[in-house]
Amino acid sequence: MGMIGGGPGAFIGPVHRYAAEMDREIELVAGVFSSDAARGKAAADVYRVDPERAYPTLEAMFAAERERADGIDFVAIVSPNHHHLPAARAALAAGLPVMTDKPLTATLDEADELAGLVRAAGLPFGVTYTYSGYPLVREARARVASGALGTVRKIVVEYPQGWLATEATGKQAEWRVDPARAGLGGCIGDIGVHAFHLAEFISGLKVVSLLADLGTVVPGRALDDDCTVLLRFDNGARGVLLASQIEVGERNGLRIRLYGDRGGLAWRQETPNMLELTKLDGRTEIVHAGSGQLGPDALARTRTPAGHPEGYLEAFANLYRDFAAQLRGEPAPLLPGLDDGLRGMAFIATAVSASRAGAGWVPLTV
Amino acid sequence: MGMIGGGPGAFIGPVHRYAAEMDREIELVAGVFSSDAARGKAAADVYRVDPERAYPTLEAMFAAERERADGIDFVAIVSPNHHHLPAARAALAAGLPVMTDKPLTATLDEADELAGLVRAAGLPFGVTYTYSGYPLVREARARVASGALGTVRKIVVEYPQGWLATEATGKQAEWRVDPARAGLGGCIGDIGVHAFHLAEFISGLKVVSLLADLGTVVPGRALDDDCTVLLRFDNGARGVLLASQIEVGERNGLRIRLYGDRGGLAWRQETPNMLELTKLDGRTEIVHAGSGQLGPDALARTRTPAGHPEGYLEAFANLYRDFAAQLRGEPAPLLPGLDDGLRGMAFIATAVSASRAGAGWVPLTV
Amino acid sequence: MGMIGGGPGAFIGPVHRYAAEMDREIELVAGVFSSDAARGKAAADVYRVDPERAYPTLEAMFAAERERADGIDFVAIVSPNHHHLPAARAALAAGLPVMTDKPLTATLDEADELAGLVRAAGLPFGVTYTYSGYPLVREARARVASGALGTVRKIVVEYPQGWLATEATGKQAEWRVDPARAGLGGCIGDIGVHAFHLAEFISGLKVVSLLADLGTVVPGRALDDDCTVLLRFDNGARGVLLASQIEVGERNGLRIRLYGDRGGLAWRQETPNMLELTKLDGRTEIVHAGSGQLGPDALARTRTPAGHPEGYLEAFANLYRDFAAQLRGEPAPLLPGLDDGLRGMAFIATAVSASRAGAGWVPLTV
Amino acid sequence: MGMIGGGPGAFIGPVHRYAAEMDREIELVAGVFSSDAARGKAAADVYRVDPERAYPTLEAMFAAERERADGIDFVAIVSPNHHHLPAARAALAAGLPVMTDKPLTATLDEADELAGLVRAAGLPFGVTYTYSGYPLVREARARVASGALGTVRKIVVEYPQGWLATEATGKQAEWRVDPARAGLGGCIGDIGVHAFHLAEFISGLKVVSLLADLGTVVPGRALDDDCTVLLRFDNGARGVLLASQIEVGERNGLRIRLYGDRGGLAWRQETPNMLELTKLDGRTEIVHAGSGQLGPDALARTRTPAGHPEGYLEAFANLYRDFAAQLRGEPAPLLPGLDDGLRGMAFIATAVSASRAGAGWVPLTV
Repeated sequence: MGMIGGGPGAFIGPVHRYAAEMDREIELVAGVFSSDAARGKAAADVYRVDPERAYPTLEAMFAAERERADGIDFVAIVSPNHHHLPAARAALAAGLPVMTDKPLTATLDEADELAGLVRAAGLPFGVTYTYSGYPLVREARARVASGALGTVRKIVVEYPQGWLATEATGKQAEWRVDPARAGLGGCIGDIGVHAFHLAEFISGLKVVSLLADLGTVVPGRALDDDCTVLLRFDNGARGVLLASQIEVGERNGLRIRLYGDRGGLAWRQETPNMLELTKLDGRTEIVHAGSGQLGPDALARTRTPAGHPEGYLEAFANLYRDFAAQLRGEPAPLLPGLDDGLRGMAFIATAVSASRAGAGWVPLTV
Repeated sequence: MGMIGGGPGAFIGPVHRYAAEMDREIELVAGVFSSDAARGKAAADVYRVDPERAYPTLEAMFAAERERADGIDFVAIVSPNHHHLPAARAALAAGLPVMTDKPLTATLDEADELAGLVRAAGLPFGVTYTYSGYPLVREARARVASGALGTVRKIVVEYPQGWLATEATGKQAEWRVDPARAGLGGCIGDIGVHAFHLAEFISGLKVVSLLADLGTVVPGRALDDDCTVLLRFDNGARGVLLASQIEVGERNGLRIRLYGDRGGLAWRQETPNMLELTKLDGRTEIVHAGSGQLGPDALARTRTPAGHPEGYLEAFANLYRDFAAQLRGEPAPLLPGLDDGLRGMAFIATAVSASRAGAGWVPLTV
Repeated sequence: MGMIGGGPGAFIGPVHRYAAEMDREIELVAGVFSSDAARGKAAADVYRVDPERAYPTLEAMFAAERERADGIDFVAIVSPNHHHLPAARAALAAGLPVMTDKPLTATLDEADELAGLVRAAGLPFGVTYTYSGYPLVREARARVASGALGTVRKIVVEYPQGWLATEATGKQAEWRVDPARAGLGGCIGDIGVHAFHLAEFISGLKVVSLLADLGTVVPGRALDDDCTVLLRFDNGARGVLLASQIEVGERNGLRIRLYGDRGGLAWRQETPNMLELTKLDGRTEIVHAGSGQLGPDALARTRTPAGHPEGYLEAFANLYRDFAAQLRGEPAPLLPGLDDGLRGMAFIATAVSASRAGAGWVPLTV
Repeated sequence: MGMIGGGPGAFIGPVHRYAAEMDREIELVAGVFSSDAARGKAAADVYRVDPERAYPTLEAMFAAERERADGIDFVAIVSPNHHHLPAARAALAAGLPVMTDKPLTATLDEADELAGLVRAAGLPFGVTYTYSGYPLVREARARVASGALGTVRKIVVEYPQGWLATEATGKQAEWRVDPARAGLGGCIGDIGVHAFHLAEFISGLKVVSLLADLGTVVPGRALDDDCTVLLRFDNGARGVLLASQIEVGERNGLRIRLYGDRGGLAWRQETPNMLELTKLDGRTEIVHAGSGQLGPDALARTRTPAGHPEGYLEAFANLYRDFAAQLRGEPAPLLPGLDDGLRGMAFIATAVSASRAGAGWVPLTV
């Protein structure tokens, strides 16, 4: 695996490294960690990658790696959003599969171009909607699919954070509030899209229309930092999506609840090893990670017995486990791919434009 | 105290009785518990009220009690919404103060009429927005007022219930889904209005506009049972109000979070004896009911030391303690009164009409 | 009802008043609230009792009340432990039933004397082991009795408090650390005995032997303030009882867990409206107060629907509801009575003496 | 790194592999995974280790690896307890550092022998008391050391599990209840020793005496499965240690609370990313993993920002990170080593013998 991005100060680069290597199916051996050569070498040191294989440019990496018997066989794109398309374009051109961070690209036009390239290349292509990798998220999906909730009628998904409640400082914050690097969306693109994907992933439903109210709370900020989006799903279910980065004191509080005509279900990312199931009669059941209550999807993505907390890195690693399976030609249908990436971009673009226009309900088309 | 409503099968009648009598300042001694005389007598028996003072009509009660040296000196109206106006009208005409359940009336016209009567009468008039009686809700209000959160920028208030997820059966359910008795609103009037009041009560802000999306999920139902309302407050703060009665497995999950530019705050009705305060630096403090951390408003409405859970009945009793103070001519400014009742009705009416019209953002005027 | 004790500064006197009157079956009308007449009158004012019926002595109360048509028909003893025997003796001599706070008396000799008097009198006699009044404690008892846990093999009951972590000041603290008023036990008698009763109440088992390690952590204190007691029950089950009043930051954290060969059960007093049931297969079920999952014992002691928190006062009121039933000659077998009081005293005395002697395992005999 | 043990069906072998490799400082390249050659090869396949380097015996591994330029430079011992001594003896004889699972050995005699060997060898030697690797455990230790609690006066540590509540079946269970493989202790050696280490690790205190009551609840079992141990620490603090493997429904509920004269502290392994701190005034503060509230020990062992749950594998990896530092000759004083291993063995042996003898309080000497 070659990494694109993830230089000094990055948060998500090391996460990809931990996740990709966890099951020992993948090894990070090269990268373009930074456009600055010195910083790239420094990153290589941190990642314990051969400094010779810390390249200054994509071109250099693809050229050099192609010559090696042990050259990289896919890339992970972990750089800010505006890099996703050029990085993916180059990788696909070099014949390499791609695992990219979300959102798919910075703009909808870029997404369209990328879609064409991916389809033409016919190579494995994954998008790291992290939270779909949690075992109990997969369990939730399986329970819904098996009818435990009956017909889903209401979905509430929230993603509160507080770390951008003040003026953004630091590498992580700065690019996320800069339209030139983040693209169309601020909060909606950074975390709203996670919530959107999670709602579709667990429910098996698709959003068909939305009403968006995106706001910018911190003065002087160019992108949204507080989002409310009303949703309608293709079976008529009603939905609410809340995402905010100005909710002081919130850490990474992604939380989803689904309600059907026969049961309900709740999951929280910050206590990810339990799933709450409710019944019409008021009964509440707690499903524990690692327990015998799990179905095959969840069990196969669990590394320790019940009571041994697994977390964010393990969830992320489950996506790479799926990706590794795809690289071997095995099916891994739950790994988010191009279509999920495109739906996410459509969601961001539609929400942003509808909110700006005060457009009320608008269709979501992909 | 004379009770109007609260006959056999009622939920809220006994609650008013518990609450009113808890501090021994008030005694239930008479009532028109039911329009059916036999049922009224049965209720008197349950309430341990002298059966002679279980009256068949309002007129009978007011006439008889007026003659007694120990006659009632106020009424509590606990009947379905469409009874609120006639009951209050008769009580005020008899010169008696009124404590009424929420919402104020069934319709906006009724509310206007009642407002005129209350103002003309100049008698104490309270509205039982129950949740404002919780000690930690009062503490939350005091903390916000003291600047603990800085400027409030975002409020999320949710009121999920699941008990009307299927066709309504039973006395409690039936009138709530019947426009003739419930009035304009279903879920929005039954519980949405509680959430609305709580947001204004704690924040000290006023909603100035809203965007409502009220839905009816259970087939054949005439009123809304699932509500999403976006809010703007008078200081520019953004808000979201969610209320639903079809969220299977939810009991009475009222929950509010306020976020300012310097701190945040969260409270949940189902674990009402703790208040979570957060700071910009990530610090979380838990404030416990009954502890030395409470300010005077909360302390004065707490009956036991920390660790001895108080609940719904004690919160409700705090409203009656305030009302009793008003009856004695003492100030009790935190008791919801006519203005709060009118704002609630405006909220319900505006949300219902705007949602039906698909009107987008509309002003909330009272 | 006449109250003995409960003068200014008392905590438990008002609690008895709230609890006794909650269901309107009992009314506080007289009392010997304090040995100081002025303080007694002040208390009467707080309780809203006719000042004429705030008596300076037990003798005065019994003499005067006997002459009244509406005289008291039982007494509640809420004074420090050393008053329990004389107060009960006088009440029983006056032919009045007794509801007394725990522990039964200050010493074992006193308990023996009281037992003789109660048996001779043949009058209703209750002991307010408060926590047995919680609906979900009664549900827990019913579930165990119905075999949900199989054979109980292990019980862990903890009662952590922190309010006596420093030198005792204030009326509540002072008598509790004074052997002349508290009697044999400090923490063990104040809260340990609650834990002991709860374990026997829920399990239906009896402690047959124990090993006690009572310590005094705060320098200069004459009684124990930190207790560990190992237990064996009559079916061979193992048990641990922890009680402490020096655990800083703990409020009133009574918590019990029972484990059988087929299931487990956990309940916490500070979140009393849920009961956790576990199965051998790892499944966890949450039983909610007020829900349809409750059996008749719990349902009959619940005043509001699910999601409307009930707490300490309501639990206490359930004991008085039972006591009122006994006064009417109806069965209320779950109300703790003389035998429970005697078992508690035997527990305290045995634990104190065995701990002082370093005696290891000793039998518990009553 | 070469692994000893960890063949098919093992739980802890893969955990060591995940943990050791997480930070990319260590690589599993060889092992004696099983005494059965075919099973050893199968394990190598799972671990993705070169099958040539899956050796049938310790001798074979040490001989072959010594010849390789890239031969292993330490071993991880992950086999059942009775293998610890022979494996460590052979590794030390081969000049290799050792990271061993706990308890140190199966018996006290073995521990003594191993201690002599380790001291003579002068090589790095670590013991994987897993829970000391959690960032918030290190934070807890630092807070106690800095005086946040004042003088520690009471420690309660519990380790409830339920998975051995029935007759043991499966590879994990079978050896743990077999004295020939587990050694002196059942539950006390498997998990009690973790609790013991955690109490000493966080408090900085040493246990000087104990009173043990170990029981065997499941019929026919040869070793203890339910343990209560009273503790005294070297500063006079009182302690209670509870460990059980028959508490149905418990997963891996390690939980510790420390109380001083100025504050208290609580941590739970199943929700490891928060630490609760309490003050004499009743104030509770929640410290979140990944937040700016952490001190350097905790921060340096945290891989993601607040709100991104880290768990068991990350905690375990922190021990390997410390061990890797020691291999490089850097200080890593918080890694448990020989002395911690010996104290654990003394604890097990003393508890087992004192419990069998009904000896009451006995000194703990190492």
